[in-house]
Amino acid sequence: VAGKALFRRIAIVGVGLIGSSLARVVKRERLADEIVGCDTSAEVGMRAVALGLVDRMAADPADAAKGADLVVLCTPLSAYVPVVEAMAPALKPGTIVTEVGSVKQVVHDKLGPLMPPGVHLVPGHPVAGTEHSGPDAGFADLFDGRWCILTPGPATDAKAVERVAALWTRAGMTIEYMDARHHDLVLAITSHLPHLIAYTIVGTATDLETHLQSEVIKFSAGGFRDFTRIAASDPVMWRDVFLANRDAVLEVLGRFTEDLAGVQRAIRRGEGQTLEDLFARTRAIRRGVIAAKQA
Amino acid sequence: VAGKALFRRIAIVGVGLIGSSLARVVKRERLADEIVGCDTSAEVGMRAVALGLVDRMAADPADAAKGADLVVLCTPLSAYVPVVEAMAPALKPGTIVTEVGSVKQVVHDKLGPLMPPGVHLVPGHPVAGTEHSGPDAGFADLFDGRWCILTPGPATDAKAVERVAALWTRAGMTIEYMDARHHDLVLAITSHLPHLIAYTIVGTATDLETHLQSEVIKFSAGGFRDFTRIAASDPVMWRDVFLANRDAVLEVLGRFTEDLAGVQRAIRRGEGQTLEDLFARTRAIRRGVIAAKQA
Repeated sequence: VAGKALFRRIAIVGVGLIGSSLARVVKRERLADEIVGCDTSAEVGMRAVALGLVDRMAADPADAAKGADLVVLCTPLSAYVPVVEAMAPALKPGTIVTEVGSVKQVVHDKLGPLMPPGVHLVPGHPVAGTEHSGPDAGFADLFDGRWCILTPGPATDAKAVERVAALWTRAGMTIEYMDARHHDLVLAITSHLPHLIAYTIVGTATDLETHLQSEVIKFSAGGFRDFTRIAASDPVMWRDVFLANRDAVLEVLGRFTEDLAGVQRAIRRGEGQTLEDLFARTRAIRRGVIAAKQA
Repeated sequence: VAGKALFRRIAIVGVGLIGSSLARVVKRERLADEIVGCDTSAEVGMRAVALGLVDRMAADPADAAKGADLVVLCTPLSAYVPVVEAMAPALKPGTIVTEVGSVKQVVHDKLGPLMPPGVHLVPGHPVAGTEHSGPDAGFADLFDGRWCILTPGPATDAKAVERVAALWTRAGMTIEYMDARHHDLVLAITSHLPHLIAYTIVGTATDLETHLQSEVIKFSAGGFRDFTRIAASDPVMWRDVFLANRDAVLEVLGRFTEDLAGVQRAIRRGEGQTLEDLFARTRAIRRGVIAAKQA
C-alpha cells in the first residue's frame, strides 16, 4: 500500500514528543491527505505549524474532530475525558478514536462510555519515547523497531483495529495484542516502576545539602546519571500514569520494597553470598533483553 | 613528558575490565618500560598475553611485585588483603601501591597497616566502567574525559601521589582529591545506591512467573532495560562494594526508602500535586548533569 493514504484526515490532539513524531511519520509515509493538529498551548501549536508537522491547527477538540476519520489522542491521560467530551458531538459514525497512553484499562473504563454510536475506540500504546518533551523533540524514527501494543475490547470493530495497526506498522512498529489489564501489569514492571524509582532517587539527591549535591552531579557517571535521564521525563504525563495505574503500580512496588528490605538486611548482616547470588541471577535477564534486541 | 616512561615496571594485579583498559593505556602512551600482569584465573592471564596487554604474566602477587615501581590492584576489594599480604615481602622501599576500588576508607584501614616501610599507598578511584567484564571488554578510551578521585592520607608522600595522578591524567582523566570517607558517601549516592536498586528491581522481575518474565523482557524499552544494563555488572565486585561501604550505603538507602514510602503514599491517596512537584523538581538535577558534561 506504499503511497496510498490510509486516512483522509488525521486529527492529532497534543503535538508533543509522541504526537509530533507521529505527525512526522504521517507526512513521511503520506498516510493521510490532511493532518489537523490541536493543542492547549498556543505556543506549541505555532511550533507545530512552523515545523510543517500539521496542515493546520484546530481551534479546539471539536474543530479537530470535525471531518476526521482518525483521531489520535496524544495528551496526558488526565486530558482524555474533557477532550473526548468536547469532541463527541463532532464525531461522525465510522470515525476511529485511538490514543497512545501508557495505561490502558482506564481508557476502556473512561472513554468507552463516551463514544457516540458507530465511533470506534481502539486503545493503543506505542512503547517508545525519550526523556525530552515538545514538538521540537519529536522525530519520525522514534517508533522504528519498537512494539506497539493494542488493547481493543472483544466487541471492537476488526476493520478499525486493522487500520490503527496499519498506521503503527508504517511507523516501523511491530503490533502486539493484549488484554488491557494485563498490559497495565506488564508496563507497571517494565516502565512505571523504573520511572517511579528513578524519580525518587533523584528526588532524594535534590534534598542533599548544596555542596554534596554538586558533587553528586559531578560524579554522576557511576550510575546515577542514567536515573537522572529517566527522571527528566514529562512530569504531568507521569503524574497521570501513576494515578491511572495505581493498583498495578502499588502491587509491583510492594514486591520491590519487600525485595529491597531483603537486600538491606543482607548488607547489614554482611551476607556476601546472598548479595552475590542476587547479582549473578540478574545477568540472565540482561542476556534475555539483548537476545530480544531490546538493548 | 610525551614519550617518556613514567615507570620502569608496572604490575597490574587483576586484568579484567579496568586492569586491561589501564594496560592498554600504558601501552598506547608508553608509560612504562614493562607491564607485568597477574590474575587468579589462568584463562584470563592467557587472554591478556594473547591480546598483547602485558609483557608477561607473573606466577603470583609476590612475583608481580618483585622489581615493580608501581603496583596497581584491579581485583575485587575482597582480594586486596590477601594479595598485599602475599606481595609485601617483595615490595622494596620507594614502590607505589595504588588501586582502583569503588570504596576508599576501607583501603586506608585494611591496607595501610600492611605497607612495608618506605612503600607508598595511594588509594584511587577512576570513576569509569561498563557493565562488561574481563580483558576482552577493556579499551583504552574507557577513562577518557572522566574523573579520577585520589584519597591519599595526610602523611602520604606527595611525589608518589603526583606520579599516580600523572598516570591517570595520561589516561585522559581529571584528578580530584577527596577525603576517603567523604568519597564513600558521594559514591554511595551516585553509584552504589543506583546499582543496588537496579539489581533489586531486576531481581524482582526474575521472581515473576515465566510467561510474565518473557513479556517484561520483550517490552523492556520503557525504562526497565536501562536497569538491566546496570544490573549486569560484575557480581563479585559489587558484593565487595556493598560489604566494604556498608554504613554509607545503609545511610543513603534509608533516605531513599523514606522518600519511596512518601511517593507510595501519594499514589495510594491519589495526591497528583505531590507527584507532579517531585517529578518537576528532579529535572533541575538532570540539567546539572548535562551542564557538567556527565550526560
